[in-house]
Amino acid sequence: MITTDILIIGAGPTGLFTVFEAGLLKLKCHLIDSLPQPGGQCSEIYPKKPIYDIPAYPEILAGDLTDKLMEQCKQFEPGFTLGERADTIEKQEDGTFIVTTNKGTKHKAPVVAIAGGLGSFEPRKPLIDNITDYEDKGVEYMIKEPEMYRNKRVVIAGGGDSALDWSIFLADVASEVTLIHRRNEFRGHLDSVEKVQELKSAGKINLITPAEVIGLEGEGQLESVTIKREAKVFKKECDHFVPLFGLSPKLGPIADWGLEIEKNAIKVNNALDYQTNIPGIFAIGDVNTYPGKLKLILCGFHEATLMCQAAYQIINPGKRYVLKYTTVAGVDGFDGTRKEAPKAVVKAIE
Amino acid sequence: MITTDILIIGAGPTGLFTVFEAGLLKLKCHLIDSLPQPGGQCSEIYPKKPIYDIPAYPEILAGDLTDKLMEQCKQFEPGFTLGERADTIEKQEDGTFIVTTNKGTKHKAPVVAIAGGLGSFEPRKPLIDNITDYEDKGVEYMIKEPEMYRNKRVVIAGGGDSALDWSIFLADVASEVTLIHRRNEFRGHLDSVEKVQELKSAGKINLITPAEVIGLEGEGQLESVTIKREAKVFKKECDHFVPLFGLSPKLGPIADWGLEIEKNAIKVNNALDYQTNIPGIFAIGDVNTYPGKLKLILCGFHEATLMCQAAYQIINPGKRYVLKYTTVAGVDGFDGTRKEAPKAVVKAIE
Ligand SMILES: Cc1cc2nc3c(=O)[nH]c(=O)nc-3n(C[C@H](O)[C@H](O)[C@H](O)COP(=O)(O)OP(=O)(O)OC[C@H]3O[C@@H](n4cnc5c(N)ncnc54)[C@H](O)[C@@H]3O)c2cc1C
Ligand SMILES: Cc1cc2nc3c(=O)[nH]c(=O)nc-3n(C[C@H](O)[C@H](O)[C@H](O)COP(=O)(O)OP(=O)(O)OC[C@H]3O[C@@H](n4cnc5c(N)ncnc54)[C@H](O)[C@@H]3O)c2cc1C
Repeated sequence: MITTDILIIGAGPTGLFTVFEAGLLKLKCHLIDSLPQPGGQCSEIYPKKPIYDIPAYPEILAGDLTDKLMEQCKQFEPGFTLGERADTIEKQEDGTFIVTTNKGTKHKAPVVAIAGGLGSFEPRKPLIDNITDYEDKGVEYMIKEPEMYRNKRVVIAGGGDSALDWSIFLADVASEVTLIHRRNEFRGHLDSVEKVQELKSAGKINLITPAEVIGLEGEGQLESVTIKREAKVFKKECDHFVPLFGLSPKLGPIADWGLEIEKNAIKVNNALDYQTNIPGIFAIGDVNTYPGKLKLILCGFHEATLMCQAAYQIINPGKRYVLKYTTVAGVDGFDGTRKEAPKAVVKAIE
Repeated sequence: MITTDILIIGAGPTGLFTVFEAGLLKLKCHLIDSLPQPGGQCSEIYPKKPIYDIPAYPEILAGDLTDKLMEQCKQFEPGFTLGERADTIEKQEDGTFIVTTNKGTKHKAPVVAIAGGLGSFEPRKPLIDNITDYEDKGVEYMIKEPEMYRNKRVVIAGGGDSALDWSIFLADVASEVTLIHRRNEFRGHLDSVEKVQELKSAGKINLITPAEVIGLEGEGQLESVTIKREAKVFKKECDHFVPLFGLSPKLGPIADWGLEIEKNAIKVNNALDYQTNIPGIFAIGDVNTYPGKLKLILCGFHEATLMCQAAYQIINPGKRYVLKYTTVAGVDGFDGTRKEAPKAVVKAIE
């Protein structure tokens, strides 16, 4: 059982900044995300694209935003359960919540902050009859541990940035990389497309287009895929098949937690603290709704900050909290580090 | 008469970010501030100190934050009335407001956003009987135009960073700089104190401590100051006397605008759009109050953003606004510039 002060569901920008604000209040956080990496939409959908409306960043790549948020909250040592979906929640008699993932991991906390964005990112799966039989037995829809593919024969399917970028990355790791796409044209960043072209020409990536994987074979473990290229159908031996057809967010199990839902989002009390209809459960960032709600990153930051104050009151009942400016009080990490403004000197001039 | 869409009172971080968010909605802004420079508390009180809780900035100097916000909103060509205090507001029959400063400058707009922070920064004046007679006739409490002091004899009084930093700066501009402080010890950044020591030793700054200016003389224009150093009283000829004893914020005339005030701040509807009890007048950032309010920079950013949506409805009644991500739609400045994410390519790999 993982225990923490604030259990955050969703490690997007809102969830990550919550760790920092909670840390200033000496509250510990643990995050659950179905993605294998933090960053939410920013890391999954558009890591290499610039955002122009993050305050005081005239321009920042979504991937860099994630890195900065990770760096900022590092002092507060967040815990992570990645690649798992929060599926159920139970309120205990002592008022705490237990949240269990699809893999059975249990988390316990007095406060739950749902920062689930547009929902849990779930892979779009290709329509191959027996594909579920091979899940985690050679078929993966996201790459969680690139090292898993070292010296293996990998077949990747897809025509977008994920397929291109992982083909490039694994070209140096796997013993063989085959990229399959149902068109000749790929859609992605120019430099990714060009790099794949280069690796293909150098014989480091096998390209099979226009083609589709239509069958999977193997005893208990994936051993080969069946490929259809125009009129021709043939088998290709491999250890892994990784269809990268994009992930799409689904509110999913959270919709059944007894929370008031409106327009596929969770209703919160925006006049106070972004709490839901269930005391102790908050919803912040893209996942919530209230009159005038804007699904913007900067709004999630504010909501997270106010929410942490309410969490503090739940966790420290009756204790008065006095806001201290970070500039004035410094920042004390849970890891023993301290950030602090240089002090003014008082010094005679002679 | 200066006319604009949103008239912003206060050019602190909240006011500056409002320009950007308004610009995304094609609304023009003009800012009034009693300080000679933008940045509010960040530029006046702690420009060289680090802030640690600006989202995605593990650390940023308050002065750099101001610079980044200025850079971000530059595309939207804000107008500025600096060094003047907004004193009165009148509602016109057509629903627009006219705001007049202490210097008589008039501004007209359908929407007024008060982003006045802790109030208008007003100088602490030394207790010298006839000092008001010489205001703008040789006595200034803030340095607005450093060029005004070129080849002049300047007496600066004060013992903090402003006095130190302006003495350093003017040492290269004025024909003579005299720094007077009632103690031998100065309080400021180590490098500022050391630099003044250096310039003093090189004969580029006259230092008179422990001393005070106790009188001002001159016919219509300042000609000399009377200095008391311990038991000795003497005159010193000069063109300017600049007492830099700090600026302190005062809510000031805004308190008489008919707005609901609580705890020295303006009450707003935080459940909707940060509007005050007077329709068309909003209050955002440190200047407002509502249940759970935190006087933090990041909160001002969110409040400004939601407020701009409401301003849009006032200025474009009945028109529907559809939120577009900056990443997807790009940013079109009023100056003709465009920021835009590089487009994905669709390209065959052969
Ligand atoms: C192409 C594009 C461009 C954009 N441009 C901008 C822009 O310019 N400016 C701007 O402000 N915003 C922009 N956005 C929106 C911005 O990305 C979102 O507002 C932001 O990501 C929301 O952050 P969040 O942390 O609330 O949620 P998300 O980033 O959506 O993260 C939520 C996370 O929660 C996880 N999750 C949800 N439910 C569960 C569960 N049950 N179990 C486990 N994990 C779960 C998801 O997997 C996800 O990783 C853009 C979005 C897109 C798609
Ligand atoms: C030492 C110190 C450390 C701080 N550290 C932090 C920190 O770590 N993190 C954080 O988030 N915040 C911090 N703050 C607070 C932060 O600076 C404020 O939240 C922020 O400046 C508020 O921005 P604002 O734009 O709302 O108001 P302000 O920055 O106060 O700007 C308001 C402006 O309005 C002007 N104004 C007001 N009335 C009038 C008028 N009638 N006419 C003309 N002009 C007018 C004022 O002159 C002023 O320039 C700190 C503050 C101080 C003093």
